Amino acid sequence: MIGQTIALDAMGGDFGSQVTVPASVQALLRFPLLNVILIGDQFEISRRLVLLGEEQASRISIVHAEYSIANDMRPSQALRTSKGSSMRIALELVADGKADAFVSAGNTGALVALSRSLLKLLPGIDRPALVSALPSLGHHQSWLLDLGANVSVDADTLFQFAVMGSVLAEEQLGYRPTVGLLNIGEEGIKGNDLVKCCSKMLQQCSAVNYIGYVEGDQIYTGKADVIVCDGFVGNVSLKTSEGVARLFLENLKMHVLESPFKRLVAKWLLSRLFNALNHLSPDQYNGASLLGLRGIVVKSHGRADITAFQHAIGEAVHEVDRQLPKKICERLEEVLLERHY
Amino acid sequence: MIGQTIALDAMGGDFGSQVTVPASVQALLRFPLLNVILIGDQFEISRRLVLLGEEQASRISIVHAEYSIANDMRPSQALRTSKGSSMRIALELVADGKADAFVSAGNTGALVALSRSLLKLLPGIDRPALVSALPSLGHHQSWLLDLGANVSVDADTLFQFAVMGSVLAEEQLGYRPTVGLLNIGEEGIKGNDLVKCCSKMLQQCSAVNYIGYVEGDQIYTGKADVIVCDGFVGNVSLKTSEGVARLFLENLKMHVLESPFKRLVAKWLLSRLFNALNHLSPDQYNGASLLGLRGIVVKSHGRADITAFQHAIGEAVHEVDRQLPKKICERLEEVLLERHY
Repeated sequence: MIGQTIALDAMGGDFGSQVTVPASVQALLRFPLLNVILIGDQFEISRRLVLLGEEQASRISIVHAEYSIANDMRPSQALRTSKGSSMRIALELVADGKADAFVSAGNTGALVALSRSLLKLLPGIDRPALVSALPSLGHHQSWLLDLGANVSVDADTLFQFAVMGSVLAEEQLGYRPTVGLLNIGEEGIKGNDLVKCCSKMLQQCSAVNYIGYVEGDQIYTGKADVIVCDGFVGNVSLKTSEGVARLFLENLKMHVLESPFKRLVAKWLLSRLFNALNHLSPDQYNGASLLGLRGIVVKSHGRADITAFQHAIGEAVHEVDRQLPKKICERLEEVLLERHY
Repeated sequence: MIGQTIALDAMGGDFGSQVTVPASVQALLRFPLLNVILIGDQFEISRRLVLLGEEQASRISIVHAEYSIANDMRPSQALRTSKGSSMRIALELVADGKADAFVSAGNTGALVALSRSLLKLLPGIDRPALVSALPSLGHHQSWLLDLGANVSVDADTLFQFAVMGSVLAEEQLGYRPTVGLLNIGEEGIKGNDLVKCCSKMLQQCSAVNYIGYVEGDQIYTGKADVIVCDGFVGNVSLKTSEGVARLFLENLKMHVLESPFKRLVAKWLLSRLFNALNHLSPDQYNGASLLGLRGIVVKSHGRADITAFQHAIGEAVHEVDRQLPKKICERLEEVLLERHY
C-alpha cells in the first residue's frame, strides 16, 4: 500500500466547504496514508482549514477553482462550459495521474458526462453506472446498480453493469458474489424485454454468478449480493427506500420521544435498536461509485453531512487500494474471451 | 345505497379458501348491505362455512368452479384455457351484471388479461392500471399507479393513468387531488422521454391538478396525492417499500423483544408506536384496484391474511358505492372534450 491521493470538489453538494473540509480532516485522521487535494475557492477553504493540526496540514493541498457547476446545469451544457470549474479541474487531476480518485457531492448528470469525457470509459463498457452498498437482513450488505447514471439502457449495457457490480462486490466480500436482475416477478415469464434479454445473456456467462430475478422486496433480504437494473428503476428504488426509512424514523421519534421520561426509558430499552437503525441509515452507505471509467469517481449524496461525506471518501480510498478499474478491466476481458471462443 | 354484490375467487392466493372464506364472513359483519358470491370448490367452501351464523349465511352464495388458475400461468395461456376456472367464472358474473365487483388474490397477469377480455376497457383507455393507497407522513394517504398491470407504456397511457388515479383519489378525499409523475429528479431536465412527454401533456390538462415531478423519497411525504409511473417502476417501488418496512420491523423485534422484561416495558412505551406501525403495514393497504375497465376488479396480495383480504373486499365495496368506472368515464370525456376544442 503506497497511500492514496484523493481530489475533492470542496464546493459541491448542498453545504459546500462547510461539509467537505471538516470531512476531509476526519478522513485524514482515519486513513494515515491519505492525501487530499481540495478544489474550490482558495480563500474559503483556507479559512475553514485554520483549525487543522500540523500533521494533517502537510497532507492537504488546495487547488483554486473559480466556480462550481450548478445543480440544475444540463450535462450537455456542463460539457461545453465547465472549464475552470472545481469538478472539471478535479477530473483533470485524475486524468493526468495527479490524483487517484475524485469524490464529489455535486451535480450527478454533469459528473457522469464530464467523467466519461475526461477519464474515458474502460474497453468493453458502453455506459458508466452508479453503484452503492445497501444494508440487508441477516447478511452484511448488497450492492444496487445503476442508481441513475443512465435513464435508459439496452441489454448489453445492463449485462456490463452486472459484470462491474460483481467485481466491486467481490473485492469487498472476498468471494464471487451472487448477482440478480431486478424484476417485477421471480418467474421467467415476468418482466419487460430488457430484463428478459439480459437474463439470457447472464445465464450463458460463467464469469458472473447469476441467480435470476430479484423482486423489489428482496433487495434488502440478501437474496443476491448484487442487484442490477436500469438507472431510472434503481434511482426510484433507492429513493423510495430512503423515503420509507424516514417514514419509520419519524414515527418512532414522534411516539417514543413524547415525554422526557419515555425518552429516558427508550434510551435504555432501545439503545441497541438505535445502533441497528444507525446501521440502516443512508449516511452509512453514502458514496456511490461511478463504475466503468478509467479512473475512480465516487458520488456523494448532495445532502450528505460531515460523517456521510467522510464515508464517501472512505469508499474512494478503498477503491484506490483495490485498483478497482484494473480489476473490472480484467474481468471484462475474461467475459469477452468466453463469448468469442 | 342499495348494497353490493361482490364475487370472490375463493381459491386464489397463497392460502385459498383458508383466507378468503373467513375474510368474507368478517366483511359481511362489517358491511350490512354486502352480498358475497364465493367461486371455487363447492365442497371445500361449504366445509369452511359451517361455522357461519344464520344471518350471514343468507347473504353468501357459492358458485362451483372446477379449478383455479395457477400462479405461473402466462396471461396468453389464461386467455385460451381458463374456461371453467374460478377467476373466469367470477369475471363473467361481473360482465353479466350478476355481481358488482370481483376481488381476487390470484395470478395478476391472468387477472389483467381476463378482465380486459371479459369486462372490456372504458372508452379512451388503452390499458388498465393497478392502483393502491399508501401511507404518508403528515397526510392521510397517497395513491401510486401503475403497480404492475403493464411492463411498458407510452406517454398517452401514462396520461390516462393520471386521469384515472385522480378520479379514484378524489372520491376518497373529497377534493381535486394533486398529481405528480414519478421521476429521478424534480427539475424539468431530468428523466426519460416517457415522463418528459407525459409531463407536457399533463401541464396542458385542466382536469388534472398536476404538480410536476415527484422523486422516490417523496412518495411517502404527501407531496402529491396521486403518483403516476409505469408498471415496472411502480411494482419495484411498492415492493422495495415492503422490503424496507420489513427490514425495520425485523430489527425492531430483534432488539426490543430480546427479554420478557424488555418486552413488557416495550409494550407500555411503544403501544402507540406499534399502532402507528400497524397503520404503515402493507395489510392496511391491501387491495389494488384495476382501473380502466367497465367493471370493478380489486387485486389482493397473494400472501394476504384474513384481515388484509377483508381490506381488499372493503375497497371493492367502496368502489361499488362510488360507481367508480362511471366517474372515470365522465372525467375522461371531460379531458377529451378539452383536447378537441
